[in-house]
Amino acid sequence: MTMQPTRVPVDLAKAYRLLNHGPTVMVSSVHAGKANVMSAAWSMPLDFAPPKVAVVIDKSTFTRGLIEASGAFVLAVPSRELAALTLAVGSESGREIDKFAAHGIAWAPGEHTGAPLIDGCLAWLECRLIPEPHIQQAYDLFLGEVVGAWADPAVFTDGHWHMEEGGKRSIHYVAGGHFMETGAAFEVTKLG
Amino acid sequence: MTMQPTRVPVDLAKAYRLLNHGPTVMVSSVHAGKANVMSAAWSMPLDFAPPKVAVVIDKSTFTRGLIEASGAFVLAVPSRELAALTLAVGSESGREIDKFAAHGIAWAPGEHTGAPLIDGCLAWLECRLIPEPHIQQAYDLFLGEVVGAWADPAVFTDGHWHMEEGGKRSIHYVAGGHFMETGAAFEVTKLG
Repeated sequence: MTMQPTRVPVDLAKAYRLLNHGPTVMVSSVHAGKANVMSAAWSMPLDFAPPKVAVVIDKSTFTRGLIEASGAFVLAVPSRELAALTLAVGSESGREIDKFAAHGIAWAPGEHTGAPLIDGCLAWLECRLIPEPHIQQAYDLFLGEVVGAWADPAVFTDGHWHMEEGGKRSIHYVAGGHFMETGAAFEVTKLG
Repeated sequence: MTMQPTRVPVDLAKAYRLLNHGPTVMVSSVHAGKANVMSAAWSMPLDFAPPKVAVVIDKSTFTRGLIEASGAFVLAVPSRELAALTLAVGSESGREIDKFAAHGIAWAPGEHTGAPLIDGCLAWLECRLIPEPHIQQAYDLFLGEVVGAWADPAVFTDGHWHMEEGGKRSIHYVAGGHFMETGAAFEVTKLG
């Protein structure tokens, strides 16, 4: 039996493709021995090179303080198998419970920042906070530079997603307990 | 034969749901008789009430000048049928051609701002620019307050998407001519 790696590095020039299709993400962070994870439907790529991202982090979240204190966070792309967990960590507060312990979530520290890379996701973007106090305060909007990227080679290799029928798929949150999964890939030719 | 309306108002409190699943959008704008449309894979909701959005608009685009001059734009959610058009308007410049004329795109002015509501899309968010010169310049990041929202009742009613198998679906751009369509809806219960 050969062990398949579940997290292989992605070229930073292709890192934007991990988020380009608009999946819902988990946001994880750690500071002074306290780690936390929340969910965010509101994130997007912000630049190609160096790759940057934007994500909305509400003032009420425990994660926000960890990001401000550590200057780092990870955006991870959960699979449909993790949808119930995504919903749970998006509705609980790290001030009240240790979500990692409560849900048995395993993680490894990102090599660049130490922020948590959560097991079982499809992709991970390790980010250093780009401090922009005005928009953090006015809009809960946080920017980051992507300093490390990884993906599960079962679904992303050589800069391309290949989410096969019946295989792992990323998810898109709507509201309540409602999600959509990422659907069929297709290709179009530019109109003449 | 009864004509079905293809654009009905959406309660502003539910407007975020039109973008929450991360579809690729068209960005349309008009100023002094010049209208244009481009595509953006990088947009997201920014707030619930009043609803706000964020979108990345590159310095090279003709759209950017129209938005800065008019203070308004529309984010529209194209269907898979419009994928080739989405790719086309995302790779051409309004400085060189009139995309509306070149592709036979019909539109109506949004009632709040006059910005173009493009026919055949699944949803429309009419937005007033929230001027934030620093992040516009530094990150090409534009914020808007949603002042009007509409959806095609074939796919969105009473605050909920219902993209049926074989029916109209929104799209998620990856790179090149590659897209994914929005896939199956599913529901999960929060973990205990």
